[in-house]
Amino acid sequence: MCGYGQNPKNVKVTVLTVELCEVGPRDGIQFESRPFDTELKIELIQALAAAGIPRIQATSFVHPKWVPQMADAESIAERLLGDARSTIYSALALNVRGVERALAAGFTAIDLSIATNETHSRDNANMTVEEGVAQAVQMIERSNTAGVRPQLGLQTVFGYGAPGDTSIDFIADLAAAFCERDIESLSLADSTGMANPVSIRRAIDRVSAVAGDVPIVLHLHDTRGLGMANVFAAYISGVRRFDTSVGGLGGCPFIPGATGNISTEDTVYMLESMGIDTEVDGAAVSAIARRIEAHVGRQLPGKMHSLE
Amino acid sequence: MCGYGQNPKNVKVTVLTVELCEVGPRDGIQFESRPFDTELKIELIQALAAAGIPRIQATSFVHPKWVPQMADAESIAERLLGDARSTIYSALALNVRGVERALAAGFTAIDLSIATNETHSRDNANMTVEEGVAQAVQMIERSNTAGVRPQLGLQTVFGYGAPGDTSIDFIADLAAAFCERDIESLSLADSTGMANPVSIRRAIDRVSAVAGDVPIVLHLHDTRGLGMANVFAAYISGVRRFDTSVGGLGGCPFIPGATGNISTEDTVYMLESMGIDTEVDGAAVSAIARRIEAHVGRQLPGKMHSLE
Repeated sequence: MCGYGQNPKNVKVTVLTVELCEVGPRDGIQFESRPFDTELKIELIQALAAAGIPRIQATSFVHPKWVPQMADAESIAERLLGDARSTIYSALALNVRGVERALAAGFTAIDLSIATNETHSRDNANMTVEEGVAQAVQMIERSNTAGVRPQLGLQTVFGYGAPGDTSIDFIADLAAAFCERDIESLSLADSTGMANPVSIRRAIDRVSAVAGDVPIVLHLHDTRGLGMANVFAAYISGVRRFDTSVGGLGGCPFIPGATGNISTEDTVYMLESMGIDTEVDGAAVSAIARRIEAHVGRQLPGKMHSLE
Repeated sequence: MCGYGQNPKNVKVTVLTVELCEVGPRDGIQFESRPFDTELKIELIQALAAAGIPRIQATSFVHPKWVPQMADAESIAERLLGDARSTIYSALALNVRGVERALAAGFTAIDLSIATNETHSRDNANMTVEEGVAQAVQMIERSNTAGVRPQLGLQTVFGYGAPGDTSIDFIADLAAAFCERDIESLSLADSTGMANPVSIRRAIDRVSAVAGDVPIVLHLHDTRGLGMANVFAAYISGVRRFDTSVGGLGGCPFIPGATGNISTEDTVYMLESMGIDTEVDGAAVSAIARRIEAHVGRQLPGKMHSLE
């Protein structure tokens, strides 16, 4: 791997950098049985920002009937968005109403997410994939009207019912269509943890070819233990943005081994040990993971927070 | 990645194969507080063989004062080595006395292992690295005299006190010297789980350049969660043999998160999902992992055995 770019002014410029987006406060805790009150969320989010994480998905604007842990989305916005800061706080929205709530709350970074599998779309969003795509166009346009370029996420890119049951041709077609719109980035989600290093490389190579200048974000789960291998494979294929979750929080706490997102501290450790700069203080993230372990009353799946 | 080699007879010949060596019965259980009696070990080893694992490190010939779990090495040999079989059963030996016991017990596959770090050598073997190297030469010669070509293992290749504190030049020199002797394979051990995909590739590339025709085996621990990423990186660098442990058994059960060897079932899953043949039945290995979980009374760190 190369080290540093040519630099006539003799100033050391690192070209090996990766940008993490922390999704623990949203994807990580959304189905935790133990409530996280607004005070605790703010404490954790501010600690994660202080640890150097450049982007944090702070909440989601979904109906509290479906995800009670996110009922305080407006309060979170009020507490976080007032101050000048370098951290980007984003919010997830799944329909136009959610986008409008996020905009009204002051979010300028909005993450959209749509299903790519018909069964998943019906089960999860009660609509067809085509209807979801049409709604995403409306959400992008609504965001753009307010001067916001949202992130557009595609779910279950690497499989829903079984690994590889999502058509990569269809994903590439969706990517091409959405990358012609005014979006900030394109996220590919391995929602079910079914990716492997080879399928990651194939998907990234296909999507990169049609994404133009739109950055690709990879959202990985460690369900089958391949999370870090997939990060490495994606890095080789040119991905420079990853969603991660402090402690590896997420998944279903009632299924042993059904882990959640890839762990922030493990991802930081791997990348930094490979000479890739994340600007994140891994030990500080580990301390936050241990704080969350004490709150949820069980060991989280990430490794490094038990060691550093 | 390429699929199949050219084949004029039109018979499908897979060129993507990896050979696993199961080390659970030795490295995995050696420091378990709950005893594994000989009957249980034989049951597990035979089940692992039936699952298709081509090589199993069945025991070690070390003084029972240091490793009481291995006091039954001769009995294990007597039970396993009688029948015609396709599985290779190996035994670990750490000195000439151990080699002689292994030979007397009937083992024709013997794994030797030496320290490469002075502190580790002193702490673990009470000798200098130079003395360990000289002893390894004696062990190889003693094995050769009995017609056995042993595996020679180098410990803590990727660090002992800290990642990267082992000189890769020294490792390459040792590899070059030992590969001129009559050994079956050369094993590089990340005993402390300090490797990362970049250090793996650097070490493998250096050692491959001096190893000649001697196959390289990689022995990885998942201490920092990089086990599968390191397997993938090593595979890219040409490694085709890995030590793994059912369930990810091993490490110290008293330190949370201090996991042991990389898990057999997770390694099988990753490789097979990438189109690489291991000839191992992952679901059968997972069932054995769950059997061991019931025996040791705690969840093992591998992921797949909770899912399949």
